[in-house]
Amino acid sequence: MLKETNQYPTVVHDHPQPSASNDEVVVKLSYAALNRRDYWITQGQYPNIKLPVIMGSDGAGTLDGKPVLIYPASGWGDRNAVQSEEFEPLGMPKDGTIAEYIAIDKNYVFDAPDYLTSAEAGCVGMAGLTAYRALFSRAKIKRGERVLINGVGGGVALMACQLALANSCEVHVTSGHDEKIEAAKKMGAQEGYNYRDEKWYKKPLESNTLFDVIVDSAGGKMFNNLVKVAAPGGRIVTYGGTHGSMEKVNTQIIFWRQLSILGSTMGSPTEFGNLLKFMTKHQIRPIIHKLYHWDSTDAAFDALRDSTQFGKLVFSLE
Amino acid sequence: MLKETNQYPTVVHDHPQPSASNDEVVVKLSYAALNRRDYWITQGQYPNIKLPVIMGSDGAGTLDGKPVLIYPASGWGDRNAVQSEEFEPLGMPKDGTIAEYIAIDKNYVFDAPDYLTSAEAGCVGMAGLTAYRALFSRAKIKRGERVLINGVGGGVALMACQLALANSCEVHVTSGHDEKIEAAKKMGAQEGYNYRDEKWYKKPLESNTLFDVIVDSAGGKMFNNLVKVAAPGGRIVTYGGTHGSMEKVNTQIIFWRQLSILGSTMGSPTEFGNLLKFMTKHQIRPIIHKLYHWDSTDAAFDALRDSTQFGKLVFSLE
Repeated sequence: MLKETNQYPTVVHDHPQPSASNDEVVVKLSYAALNRRDYWITQGQYPNIKLPVIMGSDGAGTLDGKPVLIYPASGWGDRNAVQSEEFEPLGMPKDGTIAEYIAIDKNYVFDAPDYLTSAEAGCVGMAGLTAYRALFSRAKIKRGERVLINGVGGGVALMACQLALANSCEVHVTSGHDEKIEAAKKMGAQEGYNYRDEKWYKKPLESNTLFDVIVDSAGGKMFNNLVKVAAPGGRIVTYGGTHGSMEKVNTQIIFWRQLSILGSTMGSPTEFGNLLKFMTKHQIRPIIHKLYHWDSTDAAFDALRDSTQFGKLVFSLE
Repeated sequence: MLKETNQYPTVVHDHPQPSASNDEVVVKLSYAALNRRDYWITQGQYPNIKLPVIMGSDGAGTLDGKPVLIYPASGWGDRNAVQSEEFEPLGMPKDGTIAEYIAIDKNYVFDAPDYLTSAEAGCVGMAGLTAYRALFSRAKIKRGERVLINGVGGGVALMACQLALANSCEVHVTSGHDEKIEAAKKMGAQEGYNYRDEKWYKKPLESNTLFDVIVDSAGGKMFNNLVKVAAPGGRIVTYGGTHGSMEKVNTQIIFWRQLSILGSTMGSPTEFGNLLKFMTKHQIRPIIHKLYHWDSTDAAFDALRDSTQFGKLVFSLE
């Protein structure tokens, strides 16, 4: 339904209303949020792109008038350790949430927590799920641990920051933007480091402020700095590789400190349900950077491209 | 007590008999085995070397006439996840097992399993402990999983091979020597790959013979090949870095397959006790490459340097 543009050619602007097949229901959508994955798809930089498609993994709306939100993927399978081969995020190849309606497996529809606005509920999806699995299922984060969120500002990193704070952890952040560090401190982060200073890691290292849990989506040359500041027994969770391969990772630190480098991607419907319970218990609200009308596609994708946001980019679909 | 040589200058040849302080007992040693660590010390390539010292982490002998073997370290502490700062392997800086007698904390003395010869008991120490923690505590290996031992022939790798086979796993190995691959197959390994062929990983990869658990002590450029052949949900345990830093490790494979890269070093006294129980249950015998008299230091260290062994290098101390 969204306006087609030259710049982000995968967005479709007209589409028949879907009908539900077996085990499916049709949800009327009111809000959808973007994820970095959506940008990669518009740039042709995602595996197995099939176009045209309705993009969007995150969405909230109503089912029979009741507020709901949508699990942002399908086909996880029955292993907690890893998704099945059928697993795929919503919104390519399957039609996603940037639409008026979506037909979706009824098991992927969850009651929206009462305390959230509909726009906030629309932001929980992939970012919340990814952050929850990374911290709780993979890093097995414990109350009171010291946590470093590398590159705060994006949806997953911010949600990880919020979840860790709610879990009574001492949270530190990095960013390339001082204003994002300040914003994270206002949320409750104790300290921040600007990684444009290549020696940023010396400050925590020299004061022996090492981290029990580190959350990263960059990889690349900087990954080894995270290894340097990991505490003995520490876990570094990686859910993305925006800077490519990890380079020159110090093997000796890894084995001597008994570190764990844990790959993580999204999560299961069970984890999504647990996320919603945890959020409700702690009244966690996703941070919205900017709300766009569905007719303002380009501006939202531009913001996603430039990574200037602090929080989610959300479409109103009504 | 060992002969001093020019080539391996850290070996001392005369030493007063130790006496036990509080909580210590004096064990009469009959066999001691070498580990790679011992070679690094002779080459000055180990942190905080203090000389002269009696080397040797692995040892077996008698206490009050009863066969015993010795936990090869001290100061693990009370966390299962990681050793304390006081942790140190036996045999530098503390005097080790290549001696007639050793004074040692009574909690570090274990009954030798009846079915082992005294020479075999002398080989269990660091290799068995490291392999046990890597597979069971870190990788949480399950019966029937497919396992790759990278670089079979050394003490830890061979013990990992034996423990995994006893755990009903399908074991594959790599080596730079075809004869070591053949020897591992005779032990029960299903398949082997010679890593001198840089594309060795294509064979398992193209037949989708991926590995649930991989055990590595090399790191370096080849580490990423292990990532390539790791099964979804797979765990790669690293307990050494003989080839230095891990280079160009594919971040995307790590997060998409939900891999875990797990640093591991040695283990706790509790793990040592559990190793002995597991070995006894499955009647696992450490593999002795060659037995040396204590007066033949150089030849044993030469073999250690050249990595030509398949099994442990053991000294008779009597």
